Amino acid sequence: MTDTVLSSATREVVIGSGRPFVIIGERINPTGRKKLAEEMKAGDFSTVMTDALAQVGAGAQMLDVNAGIPLADEPAILAETIKLVQSLTDVPLSIDSSIVAALEAGLAVYQGKPLVNSVTGEDERLEQVLPLVAKYGAAVVAITNDETGISEDPDVRFAIAKKIVRHAADHGIGPEDIVVDPLVMPIGAIGTAGRQVFTLVRRLNEELGVNTTCGASNVSFGLPNRNALNGAFLSMAIASGMTSAITSPLHGEVRAAVMAADVMMGNDQDCGAWIASFREQPTGSAGGRRGGREGRRRAVTEAGEASPPS
Amino acid sequence: MTDTVLSSATREVVIGSGRPFVIIGERINPTGRKKLAEEMKAGDFSTVMTDALAQVGAGAQMLDVNAGIPLADEPAILAETIKLVQSLTDVPLSIDSSIVAALEAGLAVYQGKPLVNSVTGEDERLEQVLPLVAKYGAAVVAITNDETGISEDPDVRFAIAKKIVRHAADHGIGPEDIVVDPLVMPIGAIGTAGRQVFTLVRRLNEELGVNTTCGASNVSFGLPNRNALNGAFLSMAIASGMTSAITSPLHGEVRAAVMAADVMMGNDQDCGAWIASFREQPTGSAGGRRGGREGRRRAVTEAGEASPPS
Repeated sequence: MTDTVLSSATREVVIGSGRPFVIIGERINPTGRKKLAEEMKAGDFSTVMTDALAQVGAGAQMLDVNAGIPLADEPAILAETIKLVQSLTDVPLSIDSSIVAALEAGLAVYQGKPLVNSVTGEDERLEQVLPLVAKYGAAVVAITNDETGISEDPDVRFAIAKKIVRHAADHGIGPEDIVVDPLVMPIGAIGTAGRQVFTLVRRLNEELGVNTTCGASNVSFGLPNRNALNGAFLSMAIASGMTSAITSPLHGEVRAAVMAADVMMGNDQDCGAWIASFREQPTGSAGGRRGGREGRRRAVTEAGEASPPS
Repeated sequence: MTDTVLSSATREVVIGSGRPFVIIGERINPTGRKKLAEEMKAGDFSTVMTDALAQVGAGAQMLDVNAGIPLADEPAILAETIKLVQSLTDVPLSIDSSIVAALEAGLAVYQGKPLVNSVTGEDERLEQVLPLVAKYGAAVVAITNDETGISEDPDVRFAIAKKIVRHAADHGIGPEDIVVDPLVMPIGAIGTAGRQVFTLVRRLNEELGVNTTCGASNVSFGLPNRNALNGAFLSMAIASGMTSAITSPLHGEVRAAVMAADVMMGNDQDCGAWIASFREQPTGSAGGRRGGREGRRRAVTEAGEASPPS
């Protein structure tokens, strides 16, 4: 079992198959959020602050931070956002940008060991991002597309992951610092999207020894009752070996599905987080927001801390 | 992919990995239901009737029928219950008893091809039940315990399944007519219970070519918010290859988890059952009982009918 260790200045979080699943909160991202984009561009970080605290309160063990705003100074805004979020919470961050200069600006101000989101299998991208990851001692999300786009063939996506792992080794980055995203396609458009991911996650784990992550919400694009679909997808991905996801912990169904999957994988010690979250509720009710937050915090605090691999 | 074909007088249902998951309704069972036991013993089948119709309405493609009442004439009551349920619904039945004479009484009156629930790896039980299954052309649930009880070692349970398949072959019963129950232990007591089942289901499918089932509710015994745990467990078991379960479709979370898992496995054609169930609801709501019933019925009718293996 491979452990990927991330940290802030004061806390470590470990992604690994014998541990609670790591939710990387997806909300701090202006893509498709016009109001947030305008705020961030104008130097107003109030929504960023609210989103950071709400996601950590709801059980996110890490936060993804993206400042992709058209016609803005993305490196400067990303660095400022990271400093702010690190001053508010102690969870490790995922530094998310498609612009290499923004990744570097974020890495330069980050305290601890972050996740760099992301590198792809494109040669140019590999040669730009991997040296940064090595220089700052970070870990990196490896997305399984390349110059030819996203293949519908899982074998092609696996081959790209293998290529990234090989190139990373040339830069001194081991598989324990690579978290592969097998790419989740909308199931409403591609009926095999789920099975593809489950099979890929298993192979990535068994054959490459890497941890995995994904943008889970994409699977339900265009369908009704998305939270129930996202929750079931995550449970099934966890059963297949997935160890983290960039998603929103603010949806009760998604959070409960992940917590239940931790129970089923034997990764919620004595079912402690589950019992703490739900024991005051009548059987069969769905919510438990306050209990859920406390329970999840407890899971993060007790089980998500770095400790020797078991 | 193995297809297990069950039937009533007028309908076929197929259990198989390329098809919607088959829920076998668990409610018609007096074990632990004192009032129902008293009613059935006194010849009052009103609750049986209600339970049969409610479960089929909620999406059960099959019903389990058990008449295990202490100090009662179980063979006679089981036969009468089966005749009654077959007069009310057209779903195939699982004839459930630990008494061989009751299984035979049920088989004698059953119209179609039922599931016999169950045989174990005990030599005496194998020699009593398998000839009955062969005589009546039924399929059989194979439970992976033997004279020594239930092993906590998944390899032992796999070996018992293999033994049952071998003995069945001696009676002319092929693997397509054996549905193995890997035995689900309470996760609150045995932290590895989930991983054991997921691993076993995969092996049973890949190495023995058999379909699988389980009493899913047992996994959450003693824990709060059982429906959320049962739903996540079923999604994860389906991702591992499980193809049916004896459970209750009356809980919205369990039903939604199974339907979502069918979507994720690509077994809900064009997401038709999911969309029919949930399209009128605001995103994120949990219920949809009427829609759920209609959608599930549609799934049963369109996709659950027998057709050539794909």
